[in-house]
Amino acid sequence: MKLTIEAIAPLPGLQARIDGKTKPPGSLGELERLALQIGMIQQSLTPSLGQPHLLVFAGDHGAAPAGISAYPQEVTWQMVENFLAGGAAISVFARHNGLRLQVVDAGVAHDFGPRDGLIDAKVASGTRNYLVQAAMSPAQRDQALAHGAAIVDGLAGQGCRVIGFGEMGIGNTASASLLTHQLTGTPLTDCVGRGTGLDDAGLARKQALLAQAAKRANLPADADALDVLAEFGGFEIAMMSGAMLAAAAHRMLLLIDGFIVTAALLVAARHVPAVRDYCVFCHRSAEAGHQAQLRSLAAEPLLDLGLRLGEGTGAALAWPLVRAAAAFVNEMASFASAGVSEQL
Amino acid sequence: MKLTIEAIAPLPGLQARIDGKTKPPGSLGELERLALQIGMIQQSLTPSLGQPHLLVFAGDHGAAPAGISAYPQEVTWQMVENFLAGGAAISVFARHNGLRLQVVDAGVAHDFGPRDGLIDAKVASGTRNYLVQAAMSPAQRDQALAHGAAIVDGLAGQGCRVIGFGEMGIGNTASASLLTHQLTGTPLTDCVGRGTGLDDAGLARKQALLAQAAKRANLPADADALDVLAEFGGFEIAMMSGAMLAAAAHRMLLLIDGFIVTAALLVAARHVPAVRDYCVFCHRSAEAGHQAQLRSLAAEPLLDLGLRLGEGTGAALAWPLVRAAAAFVNEMASFASAGVSEQL
Repeated sequence: MKLTIEAIAPLPGLQARIDGKTKPPGSLGELERLALQIGMIQQSLTPSLGQPHLLVFAGDHGAAPAGISAYPQEVTWQMVENFLAGGAAISVFARHNGLRLQVVDAGVAHDFGPRDGLIDAKVASGTRNYLVQAAMSPAQRDQALAHGAAIVDGLAGQGCRVIGFGEMGIGNTASASLLTHQLTGTPLTDCVGRGTGLDDAGLARKQALLAQAAKRANLPADADALDVLAEFGGFEIAMMSGAMLAAAAHRMLLLIDGFIVTAALLVAARHVPAVRDYCVFCHRSAEAGHQAQLRSLAAEPLLDLGLRLGEGTGAALAWPLVRAAAAFVNEMASFASAGVSEQL
Repeated sequence: MKLTIEAIAPLPGLQARIDGKTKPPGSLGELERLALQIGMIQQSLTPSLGQPHLLVFAGDHGAAPAGISAYPQEVTWQMVENFLAGGAAISVFARHNGLRLQVVDAGVAHDFGPRDGLIDAKVASGTRNYLVQAAMSPAQRDQALAHGAAIVDGLAGQGCRVIGFGEMGIGNTASASLLTHQLTGTPLTDCVGRGTGLDDAGLARKQALLAQAAKRANLPADADALDVLAEFGGFEIAMMSGAMLAAAAHRMLLLIDGFIVTAALLVAARHVPAVRDYCVFCHRSAEAGHQAQLRSLAAEPLLDLGLRLGEGTGAALAWPLVRAAAAFVNEMASFASAGVSEQL
């Protein structure tokens, strides 16, 4: 899967348009940088953020029962039900902030049957246990990437210009830790955090298990990103990576959530670096390994609220800021049009 | 003006209700603290943030023509026209984020006549020049405070539970600098910034002029906050202080914007300290003196986006986060109601 993703290029007149708005130049800070990015992505002086979606990719992890999470594995499917019923945090935030929420079954160990709001893209009922073997086969990985891309292709056809990424999967901070360690070269201990709330003993156990997994896989430092992805999974992460690459190829704006979503982006960006140009880094997670990811991507997130919930909640909460950045470009008066005097 | 403002008190069951939602305990970070504050203010397990308003208070400053701003004084009334026409940044952000915008003429040197969306509360056509005399008389100050309180009383009668504060007034970062210096004891040089965009020479001139004003006034370190307010103005700041005190007395939530709004809050909080309990600090301004204010109030803002526009833009941009905090308390399922397994 090698999509054509163009690096974003300057757009003549865009900076002047931003500077001509009735405000001191630069006074909207990060929102001005965001407006510039959006205009460059769309190559438009009148950007349009139509049909924004939030996709929550869900999957189970073969390593989860080994004791790497504070919650039992069935919480994955139970939370998918909660998303569909509108009772999860992401349900509430997406609803209030005008994002259409869709849930993707990338590989949950549960049979949901056909359901409104749920996209069935199941690769398998959970990955294999990376403590003893690769989490997925190359064929499964490619299937996950392709499913993610196909979902985004469909949304592009409906006029969607923005995708927020979220995830659910008991054990997926562990996968994200292994991916981050391998793809950034950060020591594993700095990539492993408490996830949904491990205590000190639980954290020590998770550290030990993940060190064992890294040792078993024994990948070279320069291993191909897609090989790393297959080794540590999960399906929801792989499907996000594929969706991100497709979204950037469609010149969409990508709303990047926290630790697990950024792990998927690390894979995508090692595969095709230009994908990063299309990303808005929505928040700084309280999960330890997110800092290493952000450093590796030279990213400064919009929000820093101590969130560590996942589901795409940081993306949904940052979305009004992104919408505001496009809105001021489109809707604010200029000094000339409003008859306001300029600087002395 | 001494309103009864109660310190907010714990509400039995509120923390348990937050912890029972389908998310790891504490995983919504600052939003959980915000939810707790809102619940305590309203003494309710089902908080309601009805009829949110954003009030932009505008006024002119007698010292402005002396050369303390990068813009000419007529920009104050021109921007009021821009607010009313819907073309300013705050117009755009309030519209997109569901805040009703109202502009208050607290003391603009311009005759607007009766206008939709404009509240005429003009005390005078600009303050006097604090370089040579007090900016306002005690009677004018009391009138400004009372007008602010009366506006809020009217909104309370309509069911408004949230007020965002914004302002417009060429020269008002200078007033805010003098107030901050006097009320926090921070050296004046640390309270003075570039405002709407002074260059180095302009900043030096502003510093020198404000040092001259502080020396002329020669107030004792423990001067009464309302005396300090009268000395340095302006009317928009005084009217905000009065509005804030009334809003807290009505147990409303106060959305605090940047440097000038926080100067008004410093006055209000020195007068009645409990007003602080009702405040959400929306953003960290790039204007230098805001840091001293936040330290003095022991406040950690929600956003840090390098904004320095004023108008209430930081408050309008943070409002969706506040709304999200109340929404998750009201709308998220609990582990029990959703049938989701709890921590191992």
